[in-house]
Amino acid sequence: MELKINGFLATGVSSGIKKDRRPDLGLIYSEKPSSVAAVFTKNRVKAAPIIVCQAHLNMNKGRARAIVVNSGNANACTGSKGIEDAIRTSQLIAETLGIERKEVLVASTGIIGKRLDIELISKAVPKLISTLSPDGFKRFAEAIMTTDTFPKISSFEGRGFKIIGIAKGAGMIMPNMATMLCFILTDIKIEPESLKNLLLRVVDETFNRISVDGDTSTNDTVIAMANGSAGEKDINDLREGLFKVCDELARMIVKDGEGATKLVDIIVKGAKSSSDAINAAKAVANSLLVKTAIHGGDPNWGRIIAALGRSEIEIEPDYVDIWIDDVQIVSSGQSTGKEVAASERMKKDEFKIVIELKKGPYQDHILTCDLSSDYVRINSEYTT
Amino acid sequence: MELKINGFLATGVSSGIKKDRRPDLGLIYSEKPSSVAAVFTKNRVKAAPIIVCQAHLNMNKGRARAIVVNSGNANACTGSKGIEDAIRTSQLIAETLGIERKEVLVASTGIIGKRLDIELISKAVPKLISTLSPDGFKRFAEAIMTTDTFPKISSFEGRGFKIIGIAKGAGMIMPNMATMLCFILTDIKIEPESLKNLLLRVVDETFNRISVDGDTSTNDTVIAMANGSAGEKDINDLREGLFKVCDELARMIVKDGEGATKLVDIIVKGAKSSSDAINAAKAVANSLLVKTAIHGGDPNWGRIIAALGRSEIEIEPDYVDIWIDDVQIVSSGQSTGKEVAASERMKKDEFKIVIELKKGPYQDHILTCDLSSDYVRINSEYTT
Repeated sequence: MELKINGFLATGVSSGIKKDRRPDLGLIYSEKPSSVAAVFTKNRVKAAPIIVCQAHLNMNKGRARAIVVNSGNANACTGSKGIEDAIRTSQLIAETLGIERKEVLVASTGIIGKRLDIELISKAVPKLISTLSPDGFKRFAEAIMTTDTFPKISSFEGRGFKIIGIAKGAGMIMPNMATMLCFILTDIKIEPESLKNLLLRVVDETFNRISVDGDTSTNDTVIAMANGSAGEKDINDLREGLFKVCDELARMIVKDGEGATKLVDIIVKGAKSSSDAINAAKAVANSLLVKTAIHGGDPNWGRIIAALGRSEIEIEPDYVDIWIDDVQIVSSGQSTGKEVAASERMKKDEFKIVIELKKGPYQDHILTCDLSSDYVRINSEYTT
Repeated sequence: MELKINGFLATGVSSGIKKDRRPDLGLIYSEKPSSVAAVFTKNRVKAAPIIVCQAHLNMNKGRARAIVVNSGNANACTGSKGIEDAIRTSQLIAETLGIERKEVLVASTGIIGKRLDIELISKAVPKLISTLSPDGFKRFAEAIMTTDTFPKISSFEGRGFKIIGIAKGAGMIMPNMATMLCFILTDIKIEPESLKNLLLRVVDETFNRISVDGDTSTNDTVIAMANGSAGEKDINDLREGLFKVCDELARMIVKDGEGATKLVDIIVKGAKSSSDAINAAKAVANSLLVKTAIHGGDPNWGRIIAALGRSEIEIEPDYVDIWIDDVQIVSSGQSTGKEVAASERMKKDEFKIVIELKKGPYQDHILTCDLSSDYVRINSEYTT
């Protein structure tokens, strides 16, 4: 499908916040007021743009017309000056577009604890506005990247409506979102309240089910905008489309996890409770020993069971079965001797680890990646 | 001090469990029945030797005379056969020493999920017994190593008594102990119950305050043996000695963390509750982004604040102060601009990160290390 959607314009430019002159400032503009739903980080330390977004959405009753995003600086841990900077950014955009400040949402990603250079943003605004175009989504996606190695875009065409989703991810990814930003645009007509209900459910099934390194950022933001130009449509179609777009973006984020070489779905079945199911999957997905074993292509199931054991879920080691894709490596807590076949499966870029606890009917999963030396290199060199 | 202690003999030999013929079987023998206190892993999956130790200590009312330890195989996730193997190991030692099976404690460390080769142990027992000697502690310390790069021994001489402590560590280290084994010998006279009370407190202040990778093993064991040959002594002296020995061993374990190059004490002050203090310290100590920043010598305090934020403690980012040793890098949530001086401090092998939350009177700390590419290499290559 063509990467355009009725009534939305987008762009991305270089403002100089990133010193290497890569694009670092993006803008999405809706030609008419849109319904907006947003989900923000659960980190108790929230970046300034999140506080400003929440205020604007409150002031404008869940409607907005523009989203301005910078990469290279998170505007987090910047105190009241940081909030002023985020407000000033929205103001600059609002004035130039001739809309109200409360109609402009802001998001930032990058280094924490440094003031945003508003001068640079101010100088870039004319270019930002003048380059807005119906086919600017790819440039927008590039402008919000940090350590991402590729832009993340997904689209969906439903019966009479479209969805475009754009995300960035890379490090600090852990359930309850991550250093991730995601912007979803649709031309469907829907009230903010209904959009929010849908979005919460879909985010929980997608972005809240991925993990790169167990860290949760101060800036995580998912914003959905519906401009209504396609009229009212079937809500189940919209849910399906939102799920497909968010699921694809979530998978891209894990695949592009810092230093990641493998995408692994950790599936826990037979848990005694739903919280046991998700906690077990998280414990395995975040274990450094499991993640390094995945990196080495080693079906070291002892590390999986050790991770389950420390997760404080109900577990009888003697009940546990474990599969790598279709190869069962553990049967009732004992090795099946199929390590060679299992390590063959682990050579693939994507595979599943299925854990059957035999303690109850609950099931959940976390999509994760391996831990490589490159993760360490990237994160010891990314400097303040 | 000379590494001997009245009434205790020790040794370490190679049995062939480790294929490269490094020492892998150690024995400590007390000439008379000793009071014993033990602390085991909080992982819900407990290795066979732990189950057998608990049974023996119960059967023999907290007394024992020997500890046999193998490295190279954890005898964990080995089902009822594994328990039989651990029992058989203790039996072999008991028969040869002419003592009761319930007087022999067992511990294992190494790969999970593989049966222990009892034939190899059986063949090595005569050599093990015949090499027991009053100065065999260094050989014992070497025989219990896995990915450790140096043997870990600490000793203490109190007023009229001695303590020798021997430990192994390396990976899977996280509060509530780790893939760590520790054996503490003293010639003081003390009842098992009193020794247990002391040990619990000291372990909580030392081994439960260290973290390498956030994983907790199935085999963690601390055993203290007191043979009474020096008679009754001041209990405060004993507590001081136990603390010094365990603290030194705990620091050695972190220093020798897999791939570690730096030893960092994460100190949290001004927490609203004692649980906030320890949870904050753990969140920072286990954050991969903080650990890689430490590795890179980068005073990236934004990652510290982000880790605090996701720890679910009470925090006002605008109150937080952070120091690297004596250099204050954050004052009331803002950068002090002293990054250069701070990164100088971070070049040292050991330093402190002090976090002042200004929310209450509680304080705690975790001793941790950096995360290096070597950690990844070691753990992707250590194979099943």
